Amino acid sequence: MSAQHPPQAQAAPSPSTSPLGLVERLFQGDVRALARLLSLVEDRGPGYERVLDAVFPHAQRADAYRLGITGPPGAGKSTLVDRLVRRFRREGLRVGILACDPTSPFTGGAVLGDRVRMQSLRDDEGVFIRSLATRGSLGGLAAVAHEAALLVEAAGYDVVVFETIGVGQVEVDVVEAADTVVVVLTPQSGDAVQALKAGLMEIADVFVVNKADQGGADRAVQALQLALRPLQDQDEEGKKAWRPPILKLSATRDEGVEALKAAIEAHRAFINAEGLKAQKRRARVEALLRRVVEEGLRQALWGDRGALKARWEEALQQVLQGARGPFAAAEALLRELLKARLEVP
Amino acid sequence: MSAQHPPQAQAAPSPSTSPLGLVERLFQGDVRALARLLSLVEDRGPGYERVLDAVFPHAQRADAYRLGITGPPGAGKSTLVDRLVRRFRREGLRVGILACDPTSPFTGGAVLGDRVRMQSLRDDEGVFIRSLATRGSLGGLAAVAHEAALLVEAAGYDVVVFETIGVGQVEVDVVEAADTVVVVLTPQSGDAVQALKAGLMEIADVFVVNKADQGGADRAVQALQLALRPLQDQDEEGKKAWRPPILKLSATRDEGVEALKAAIEAHRAFINAEGLKAQKRRARVEALLRRVVEEGLRQALWGDRGALKARWEEALQQVLQGARGPFAAAEALLRELLKARLEVP
Repeated sequence: MSAQHPPQAQAAPSPSTSPLGLVERLFQGDVRALARLLSLVEDRGPGYERVLDAVFPHAQRADAYRLGITGPPGAGKSTLVDRLVRRFRREGLRVGILACDPTSPFTGGAVLGDRVRMQSLRDDEGVFIRSLATRGSLGGLAAVAHEAALLVEAAGYDVVVFETIGVGQVEVDVVEAADTVVVVLTPQSGDAVQALKAGLMEIADVFVVNKADQGGADRAVQALQLALRPLQDQDEEGKKAWRPPILKLSATRDEGVEALKAAIEAHRAFINAEGLKAQKRRARVEALLRRVVEEGLRQALWGDRGALKARWEEALQQVLQGARGPFAAAEALLRELLKARLEVP
Repeated sequence: MSAQHPPQAQAAPSPSTSPLGLVERLFQGDVRALARLLSLVEDRGPGYERVLDAVFPHAQRADAYRLGITGPPGAGKSTLVDRLVRRFRREGLRVGILACDPTSPFTGGAVLGDRVRMQSLRDDEGVFIRSLATRGSLGGLAAVAHEAALLVEAAGYDVVVFETIGVGQVEVDVVEAADTVVVVLTPQSGDAVQALKAGLMEIADVFVVNKADQGGADRAVQALQLALRPLQDQDEEGKKAWRPPILKLSATRDEGVEALKAAIEAHRAFINAEGLKAQKRRARVEALLRRVVEEGLRQALWGDRGALKARWEEALQQVLQGARGPFAAAEALLRELLKARLEVP
């Protein structure tokens, strides 16, 4: 983009294209400013921290909502999102869709196909769609996704939908921080039930058996019910627990989507009533703060003028030459750092 | 296992079942000790750090070799490993296979099937097979895999083979740290070529087009050659660069496996000659040391008596109430920590 400007223009960027100028435009709902700020945050471009700080108080409004939708590839998530978002639109809600693709070298093709299905939503000004990718920084996608949600909310969108491609750990991390998590399965994914025991049970607030028109859906629902039976009606503190409903629907036929919307709204009411929404928000802010502190500390230690850098090569050589084990060497390094009073004074 | 002992036996474990007792048995090639120590490391059980320190000087011998084998599900990796390992065995080399499965809730079924194919190797005392799983700790599998390799090497195995299930980022992290990386594709995985541009190009030392008996293999090879053409024959420093060979084979028919073994040996000779083996080893040790220091630091900051814990809630409340942005709050926390002289004295 800088190519459009003569070099001298870079020294004093016009207020409207500087990061904080873009933030002003964001608050007015400017979609191009939103797109550019999302790129800035995704790329960790200069000033992205100030942008998020400026945006923060205007995001995560009490009435804003974050929805996570996950499930195995081929479960029909994109079509389902399309149908569901239309329902939100009929109520006048503005929706931002963040499609989260942990970059796997072998999924390039499928992803594009999925996205095309949502094409029709692109003509709707009340809908914003954006793909986010990891670009190799493992574990980064969940952080970027929730920072992106801050921008989308600050631009005035009422609902943020995180849609994932697969169901790896990264995807679980992305949707886990949403207010409501919808897990989409198909009648064919019989092994899913077996698999649920391993991980998705804990994070699902609503189960959907999609493609119910293809038969086998009832058996899938029964299997899920069986798997969910051990869930308690109360949590350890005696509070009423949420029982994830299991819904059959057909996204392509647009059947059963109303019931899904009702289930999502019921869960929303539940977490508001139980104070869980505030708890989720707190957990998200805590995760963000923790990440920033750890990143800053890493810089302070290993950066060009980092405290550890001077001693690092020595410790490494000790380990390489077998004079000390890696844990013993790390402990010695830490002891030095901590002796230098790594404490609040 | 503790169930076999009366409770009082736990207070003074016999030397041979204490962690360091198990290490002694490990050095004598005791497979049961190896299995138990692998569990200890995988679970981060008590004393695992001392175990790895004790094992470290006996692992990563100059003649030990680490091989990474990755590729999309269904490419026939397990069969290929089976055939390849038989070749190593004929030369009297002892082989440890670490099957690395980043736990995805939806792969439960396939994994077991793959493993069964290697069943025949299980009767061979010169082969050790073990599955490693992440159990939810993102990014942890690569660390655990290479710690496990230390144990396997210390038990006297000459070659460690990392075999991955899929090709996500976690798998890339696992094999990337190996001495030689073999990427297994099939003629059907035409999209793989497109995908190679995205990530696997950089880490592959040898390409295999498996299932060559099914036709289409020549086209796949040509497409790979085209994709690899931009690779330079020299790196930026003018050193001779390695050009990944592309091999057709059929693992099920046991055809072409000799050529693969030769290619692996050629790469081994190359990295030894160019000093790359020492470089790879150094990178692995550095990654381990860094992880341990960061983990220790995290404890020192956020642990029960951590330096940050006292100020944490205050900073969090500031952010939650909108008094400060998350980055500004983190910066203030860091400034306090660093003011307290986070420097080597």
